[in-house]
Amino acid sequence: MASHWTKPAPTGYTDSMDSDPARPLDTISEPSRVAVDDEGIGPDELGLAARNHGMPLEAMRWDVTPIGLHYLLTHYDIPSVDDTSWRLDVSGLVDVGLSLTLDELRDRQSVTHTVTMECAGNGRARLLPRPVSQPWVHEAVGTMRWTGTPLAALLREAGLDPKATDVVFTGLDHGVERGVEQRYQRGLSLDDALRDEVLLAYECNGAPLPPQHGFPLRLLVPGWYGMTSVKWLSSIEVVDEPFDGYQMQAYRLRQVSGEPGLALSRIDPRALVVPPGSPDFMSRRRFLPAGSVVLEGRAWSGWGEVTRVEVSTDGAGSWRDAELEPAVGPYAWRRWTLDWDAAPGEHVVAARATDATGRSQPADQPWNRGGFANTSAQRVEVLVLPAT
Amino acid sequence: MASHWTKPAPTGYTDSMDSDPARPLDTISEPSRVAVDDEGIGPDELGLAARNHGMPLEAMRWDVTPIGLHYLLTHYDIPSVDDTSWRLDVSGLVDVGLSLTLDELRDRQSVTHTVTMECAGNGRARLLPRPVSQPWVHEAVGTMRWTGTPLAALLREAGLDPKATDVVFTGLDHGVERGVEQRYQRGLSLDDALRDEVLLAYECNGAPLPPQHGFPLRLLVPGWYGMTSVKWLSSIEVVDEPFDGYQMQAYRLRQVSGEPGLALSRIDPRALVVPPGSPDFMSRRRFLPAGSVVLEGRAWSGWGEVTRVEVSTDGAGSWRDAELEPAVGPYAWRRWTLDWDAAPGEHVVAARATDATGRSQPADQPWNRGGFANTSAQRVEVLVLPAT
Repeated sequence: MASHWTKPAPTGYTDSMDSDPARPLDTISEPSRVAVDDEGIGPDELGLAARNHGMPLEAMRWDVTPIGLHYLLTHYDIPSVDDTSWRLDVSGLVDVGLSLTLDELRDRQSVTHTVTMECAGNGRARLLPRPVSQPWVHEAVGTMRWTGTPLAALLREAGLDPKATDVVFTGLDHGVERGVEQRYQRGLSLDDALRDEVLLAYECNGAPLPPQHGFPLRLLVPGWYGMTSVKWLSSIEVVDEPFDGYQMQAYRLRQVSGEPGLALSRIDPRALVVPPGSPDFMSRRRFLPAGSVVLEGRAWSGWGEVTRVEVSTDGAGSWRDAELEPAVGPYAWRRWTLDWDAAPGEHVVAARATDATGRSQPADQPWNRGGFANTSAQRVEVLVLPAT
Repeated sequence: MASHWTKPAPTGYTDSMDSDPARPLDTISEPSRVAVDDEGIGPDELGLAARNHGMPLEAMRWDVTPIGLHYLLTHYDIPSVDDTSWRLDVSGLVDVGLSLTLDELRDRQSVTHTVTMECAGNGRARLLPRPVSQPWVHEAVGTMRWTGTPLAALLREAGLDPKATDVVFTGLDHGVERGVEQRYQRGLSLDDALRDEVLLAYECNGAPLPPQHGFPLRLLVPGWYGMTSVKWLSSIEVVDEPFDGYQMQAYRLRQVSGEPGLALSRIDPRALVVPPGSPDFMSRRRFLPAGSVVLEGRAWSGWGEVTRVEVSTDGAGSWRDAELEPAVGPYAWRRWTLDWDAAPGEHVVAARATDATGRSQPADQPWNRGGFANTSAQRVEVLVLPAT
């Protein structure tokens, strides 16, 4: 039988695109689109899912996610960087431009933060209709210990021009996205860039950054969705107006393409359950013997401390408050537990978090065209077997 | 808009399954099935793709795959093992049963092998019709340095009964698969188990095994597909007949379910291309400027040394021999390169390997119901832009 890949016809609606011979990359880089109702995951989404990966949810058992289990989203290719010739350039509206080696950065003040990072697209594949992009279900999260030097001190050393308002961070990763050729770039307002906790990180979990997390240096903005923390950082430019590059436009909450929308920034609260018992290989549905079970999981928010986690074992019919352990750090998740007397039969376990600002997980997720920040509660199907 | 997941109706054909109240796990663990022609990837396959992951193909630039980029396939959950109470038990047809701590294993002879490992299901998602399981495209491979102690010396120390013919390896990972509750188990013939290169590995890339690769100990069978190298190893039992457990039946080449089929063992030859140039985020199609390009990639076989790699830049119309570098080790991949004068326009790059036993990659992949060992050549679409 022939071995080939049948690409489904593009049945979802798309942005308008004019064919333009001056834009040859449009032939390989199509506009964003939304899947039709029951369209299965297509080859492009599968290609992304096969190379990027989430954190298997049982890894929430560890306070700090082991290397290789933290989620990973790479827009283009992972660059292979020679750290002997690599430099970090600081330029723009500064008194003195800088070009720093990795050793020079390591010789500066060193700070370690334990940070829960999440992809802004986490939950995208559970939206209906499904925006066609990296198809995360629940697992685009992880918590690691990041070591680096504070960005603010470096910017102050370079000397900020009074007209400075925004800072642009450029990575070495290069590609095309929705027809726009680019190096990955994000901006931060000067106020956000000067926050104490923002690092230029060269280690995670006590070792040099692995290639996939940005070797030799990345930006690390605790509490913000991962797109902000530019990997493979090569330059920092101080500018006098808000940076409006491709990725600033891409990561916005919109109902229709073209509208201004709302920029994504901090991580909305979420609680996830370590799936209890044992799984079926294919469906990941769970089974366990009847009796006393300690349900556990993690909860986090980039807006403020998680103050409450509620857990349901009847498919969001009723909720009980979970016990909360102290957070692993000011920018990291909290472990929660709940005793459950599991009776034989089918159950659906769910959890939801609320933070100190009053933000919580919605019962009914507002849809958005980019498929961002879907924090509607995870549902874990559990079959409880009669005790033997 | 509602946030939920629409599960497509099971339209593919399935094995027969009788509903049996004595088998409650059948309600969460369905028989294997094959997708219908254009059925997209469904939620179960996506769930596996989101937690397991392949090696981004640009990682073939490294001789040894960094931790976190090697492919990972976990049948059930990653166990969290306390190595202070963990023991490796050796039992069955031996003169003296053993129960060994990790320190006792580390005190034995230590050997390091650089090994290319591949999942037997690599390429499954490119078969038509597509067997519904972990939907690998090309990337279920990696090469790491594994350190451990030779299995043969340990078995000989325990003393082999003359009736011994097979060795059963049991992991700590537990779940249900196609209705069969199990701990992950595989057998090896005594002859294969006594091969010099077979290790009980406790380190990879110079560090203790990370949880996802089998901490604290795994079997490592160089040259064989990954299902053989049991992770989270807890017991070894010597027996007097071929082990015929679930996983021995699962990993077989069959045309229809129920037929005996052929057991998978060693890795069939494969060459892969490091996708040249830069990618489009969504489609992963490539672009680069016209001119001289060095194409590169890796090739491997578990049956014998790779002796030839051929590369096509016209979609398998014509082939040229690539330059081969020495293998990274006797059980590891070889790097290959080919100079390409890339002219503007659309091209399809492909590669195929042949090994010392004469095995090579088929032009037309024989289909099998489990979706195993699909080594039909990778096709990389490349758009070459006019030089600027």
